[in-house]
Amino acid sequence: MIRFECDYGEGAHPSILQRLQETNLEQTPGYGEDVYCAKARETIKKLCGTPKADVQFLVGGTQANLTVISAALRPHQGVVAAQSAHINVHETGSIEACGHKVLALPAKDGKIAAGQIAALCEAHRADASREHTVQPKMVYLSQPTELGTLYTRSELMAISDVCRANGLYLFVDGARLGYGIAAAGNDVSFGDLGTLCDVFYIGGTKQGALFGEAVVLVNPALQEDFRYLIKQKGGMLAKGRLLGLQFSALLEEQAKLYLSLSRHADRLADRLRAAFSAHGFSFLVESRTNQVFPILPDTLLDALAKDYSFSDQQRIDPARRAVRFCTSWATKEADVDALCADLDRLCGAPESV
Amino acid sequence: MIRFECDYGEGAHPSILQRLQETNLEQTPGYGEDVYCAKARETIKKLCGTPKADVQFLVGGTQANLTVISAALRPHQGVVAAQSAHINVHETGSIEACGHKVLALPAKDGKIAAGQIAALCEAHRADASREHTVQPKMVYLSQPTELGTLYTRSELMAISDVCRANGLYLFVDGARLGYGIAAAGNDVSFGDLGTLCDVFYIGGTKQGALFGEAVVLVNPALQEDFRYLIKQKGGMLAKGRLLGLQFSALLEEQAKLYLSLSRHADRLADRLRAAFSAHGFSFLVESRTNQVFPILPDTLLDALAKDYSFSDQQRIDPARRAVRFCTSWATKEADVDALCADLDRLCGAPESV
Amino acid sequence: MIRFECDYGEGAHPSILQRLQETNLEQTPGYGEDVYCAKARETIKKLCGTPKADVQFLVGGTQANLTVISAALRPHQGVVAAQSAHINVHETGSIEACGHKVLALPAKDGKIAAGQIAALCEAHRADASREHTVQPKMVYLSQPTELGTLYTRSELMAISDVCRANGLYLFVDGARLGYGIAAAGNDVSFGDLGTLCDVFYIGGTKQGALFGEAVVLVNPALQEDFRYLIKQKGGMLAKGRLLGLQFSALLEEQAKLYLSLSRHADRLADRLRAAFSAHGFSFLVESRTNQVFPILPDTLLDALAKDYSFSDQQRIDPARRAVRFCTSWATKEADVDALCADLDRLCGAPESV
Amino acid sequence: MIRFECDYGEGAHPSILQRLQETNLEQTPGYGEDVYCAKARETIKKLCGTPKADVQFLVGGTQANLTVISAALRPHQGVVAAQSAHINVHETGSIEACGHKVLALPAKDGKIAAGQIAALCEAHRADASREHTVQPKMVYLSQPTELGTLYTRSELMAISDVCRANGLYLFVDGARLGYGIAAAGNDVSFGDLGTLCDVFYIGGTKQGALFGEAVVLVNPALQEDFRYLIKQKGGMLAKGRLLGLQFSALLEEQAKLYLSLSRHADRLADRLRAAFSAHGFSFLVESRTNQVFPILPDTLLDALAKDYSFSDQQRIDPARRAVRFCTSWATKEADVDALCADLDRLCGAPESV
Repeated sequence: MIRFECDYGEGAHPSILQRLQETNLEQTPGYGEDVYCAKARETIKKLCGTPKADVQFLVGGTQANLTVISAALRPHQGVVAAQSAHINVHETGSIEACGHKVLALPAKDGKIAAGQIAALCEAHRADASREHTVQPKMVYLSQPTELGTLYTRSELMAISDVCRANGLYLFVDGARLGYGIAAAGNDVSFGDLGTLCDVFYIGGTKQGALFGEAVVLVNPALQEDFRYLIKQKGGMLAKGRLLGLQFSALLEEQAKLYLSLSRHADRLADRLRAAFSAHGFSFLVESRTNQVFPILPDTLLDALAKDYSFSDQQRIDPARRAVRFCTSWATKEADVDALCADLDRLCGAPESV
Repeated sequence: MIRFECDYGEGAHPSILQRLQETNLEQTPGYGEDVYCAKARETIKKLCGTPKADVQFLVGGTQANLTVISAALRPHQGVVAAQSAHINVHETGSIEACGHKVLALPAKDGKIAAGQIAALCEAHRADASREHTVQPKMVYLSQPTELGTLYTRSELMAISDVCRANGLYLFVDGARLGYGIAAAGNDVSFGDLGTLCDVFYIGGTKQGALFGEAVVLVNPALQEDFRYLIKQKGGMLAKGRLLGLQFSALLEEQAKLYLSLSRHADRLADRLRAAFSAHGFSFLVESRTNQVFPILPDTLLDALAKDYSFSDQQRIDPARRAVRFCTSWATKEADVDALCADLDRLCGAPESV
Repeated sequence: MIRFECDYGEGAHPSILQRLQETNLEQTPGYGEDVYCAKARETIKKLCGTPKADVQFLVGGTQANLTVISAALRPHQGVVAAQSAHINVHETGSIEACGHKVLALPAKDGKIAAGQIAALCEAHRADASREHTVQPKMVYLSQPTELGTLYTRSELMAISDVCRANGLYLFVDGARLGYGIAAAGNDVSFGDLGTLCDVFYIGGTKQGALFGEAVVLVNPALQEDFRYLIKQKGGMLAKGRLLGLQFSALLEEQAKLYLSLSRHADRLADRLRAAFSAHGFSFLVESRTNQVFPILPDTLLDALAKDYSFSDQQRIDPARRAVRFCTSWATKEADVDALCADLDRLCGAPESV
Repeated sequence: MIRFECDYGEGAHPSILQRLQETNLEQTPGYGEDVYCAKARETIKKLCGTPKADVQFLVGGTQANLTVISAALRPHQGVVAAQSAHINVHETGSIEACGHKVLALPAKDGKIAAGQIAALCEAHRADASREHTVQPKMVYLSQPTELGTLYTRSELMAISDVCRANGLYLFVDGARLGYGIAAAGNDVSFGDLGTLCDVFYIGGTKQGALFGEAVVLVNPALQEDFRYLIKQKGGMLAKGRLLGLQFSALLEEQAKLYLSLSRHADRLADRLRAAFSAHGFSFLVESRTNQVFPILPDTLLDALAKDYSFSDQQRIDPARRAVRFCTSWATKEADVDALCADLDRLCGAPESV
């Protein structure tokens, strides 16, 4: 079985394991107060151009999302997000379990627009019974989105402007941030996030680390007592240095390893996109990051399922469904070769040749 | 100012105040453990044909909703409701504040259908990652709905069947139940609710009481320790007898007073509907209960607003919006006369005469 | 059965029912935005010398406590209270259900001291692992306490000073405030609370109203969006004017009726204290408010229980227990006469005569 | 600096890193549904004699505690624990943040007794106002306790009996379980926990793993939908196999490595105890596990602090305080040698020689 169903099927980049090995028997203080975390913090603040940010390391994405959101909101406040947002559909109601409503907006290709947010805020303000409704106070975006699409710099700027005009925090979930930054056509940098967001995180789990998300708290209002929240929500790793070590390995030298691994995955995803296209298949959504959503006949999918794993996304019609193929930092070129060859075998010679 | 903006603008039916007066200086135990509550419990159990039900009295609807829902659900479970449901849009996220997601379904005229619920349950069961999503465990309906419409008996039966087949509780919010039961064309009785629901409540606040909702817990699984939840959520009225007294007054003799007051309001709402119709205006939704949703020109609304209060519902186009006029147990015939006359004056002779 | 088990066994002072009657069929806006609430607000702000306070009316004490506390605290913050505090032992974990720990301190006669609070804050600050512990952010006191005792003005001033020095809010639960203000030896006024507290409430339920607590939000930081919280927690009474009307009746003219009713109850409690003393019985705690806690032999209690209700407080030894007798605004002099006579009959002539 | 301040200062046992290395580029399904977790589950079920248990792997202890407790309790229920319990004092109110009160009992040497639990349950049942109080539903113990002491088998049996008689779940936090099982004088085995508990966990983080706690859900009532809770609370590790691999390494062959590492730590702790004793120092508490709590003069502590880290526990008098020295699976014999030698140097020749 060759696995394309997710981007967290393997362990970590060998150089990361190497660092864990080298430092294994050193003694350090716990809970992220060690020198390796300190170093990673500095690296990240420099990378993002946010010298006054606080950087905290968490183990996973759901944990990062619920900790940030519950640290930021009062009980009557909600977080605005796309209906397809991870926090709205794939985290078992973790935000609600912390007491907050996700104010879901219809999304186009996984994205919401500044205008939608502005309209929501305006409607709330104009409502004479607004005390009877949840107050929007934060916007949550994923970059790339859950559908692999990207916000452009100008879209993010517009959203950031709306947030600031309306007193909302802007929070960007970057669980796959590298695959976005490395993607063809992307114009959003680490520094842009540092400028436009109140808080965001740089994903490690899906990007070559064993695990870990680096939360960058740019807005000082969100920094206060944040570590109490990490502890309370169960996210404070005892051996916090494991996180610092991994993020240093990935992000030092201007995120050299991080971006190199991301480019690898994006390039292989491009190869898959080209292969599906060549056979005349369309896509649920256009994207240039590491997730590919072809719409394929059930018969072809049944045949592919014998050797490849992928995940179901959405039924399109009685005979076809959209599925997701993920590449990652660890995907082997040979596995992509094999899939492309099997596609040719199962579908005949590509149309475009 | 003549008020049609809600159905809780006045105090209570005089006979209710009379009973409070008569018993005022009697000494009773607190917290609903008095003889008046006991009597009201028996009255309600008989009325609904639910001899084994537990009946508890709460002060208001939001309180009743959040107490019932948090008593019923485990943390990972959610409540299915119409997007327009009161718990989804007008209770400041009270359900989320108790930790639970409202699984909102698109509604037609304020109603959801059995098929939608079945599809949601089926999709959840079929999802290989269902642990990453909220588990549907309860269905919340309002009868009448927030738009004044009514579920028919066969619609409720279908929903109840789907709930039982899928292990979901059915919860009916009857904040305006009397206006539904008394409405022309309604075929759902108190007894039907007792048979089809796991839990429902009979509204007092909007139906002639000073305040109060009588929660009927039919399913024994929902009865266990329910009073702990009432206390914890702040809903246990110290002088609980005030609730028992009021519900006895409203519901004894087969809900004689309750239904009489409801019929009064529904009849006056019918007069309003007829008056708007006669002038050629259409409605956001057809209903026969005490809420009327005409679509009217802004110019007319501005003129009416000088003497009448009503509430905004929804903008229809740049020149017209849907508004809500409510009648109630306390609406004066003369106030309806006045509004009808003003309509004639402002719009000219009715078309249909 | 003559009831001394609580101070909420009757309805309301007749003049309150009278006002409800007189205004019953008036139409007002809902949710406390009517003229009667406005008037009561002004009355209370004047009474407490807090022209910039926000005043909100809630139905009951548990509701008031949980709404105030959850409005004030971030998730990692807790509320400091006496171990015997109502929120710690008699509200079914309502504060925890809102996510916050009650940081319970040992109490003496129901009271905690400024020094204990200061020590707790100091210990928290000095703890290198303080992020692993709950941060104290509010102090909750009851005046009178659950044991009927009173903080003196200087005790309250010292606590207020400690709170301000440590950035804690001071919250006083005044469910029985009148019985405290009217008590012999009391030196704490409404105005003192307005000066020393960040938020407090003036109880109505136990003081002659059908129900109701008037929350006075003195600190502007606690005023922001407070009404959203009231709604979310289920405490926003639809017919809010019922609360305004009652508090106006009780508190206008410098709380004339409120204090008069309180003095009545305190005087009758003094009579009970004198009667128990005269027969040589001691008390669990000394107090001058409307709660009396004699330590009595089981045999005497069994005899009294045939005609009087009272509540168990604490077993003292195998033969004796402390119980609570409550007087109230509604206690009849004749009922106190009867109890005193029965004491004489059961115990023989009083020792002190 | 030689660190004795905790037992999570190093990485992992080399054989664990070795396994991560060997399997690093294998592809497996995520979220603990891989073959390595399956294998570890079987190993643990066999070790504990619980063939029908469900075993789930979490990253850390606070996460394990809050997930288990919130999965088990309804909103009005609380968890009984020692005042010194980790969940009561060192997890930033995580249990309260999930809505539940910790019902803290006074502890002796970190332990509570069956009789205390029985008395609490009896008092709750006997309370006529029990609906106004939190219902005890679970008992939480740590084995070893936070003070390094151990429950004996007969103590645990008595507690288990009380729990079953009163319908309470028994939950044992085994974050340092190995140090307990390996301790001199211990008579509680893995199998005993499997028989006596409803749920417990076997700690990895402090016992030689990089991180991880293996939760053994013995009672079927606690197994239902438990994985939803793990996901909701942010504890579902994407690369779950990392946990399975580590626990297999530690626990296979009858926990051979786990117990061997534990014995190492306990033996070195015994050496420290002997050294402090030999100089005439007493201890805050007697224990035979890896935590040592000597009471030492501030002057000595100041001298030691130049080369050794340890943690403050409690001030004993103006000149002395109790501190904690921890050994672990990774403690070097030479570091203990050094500390013993420095003690001799600073205190003079040991008394007992």
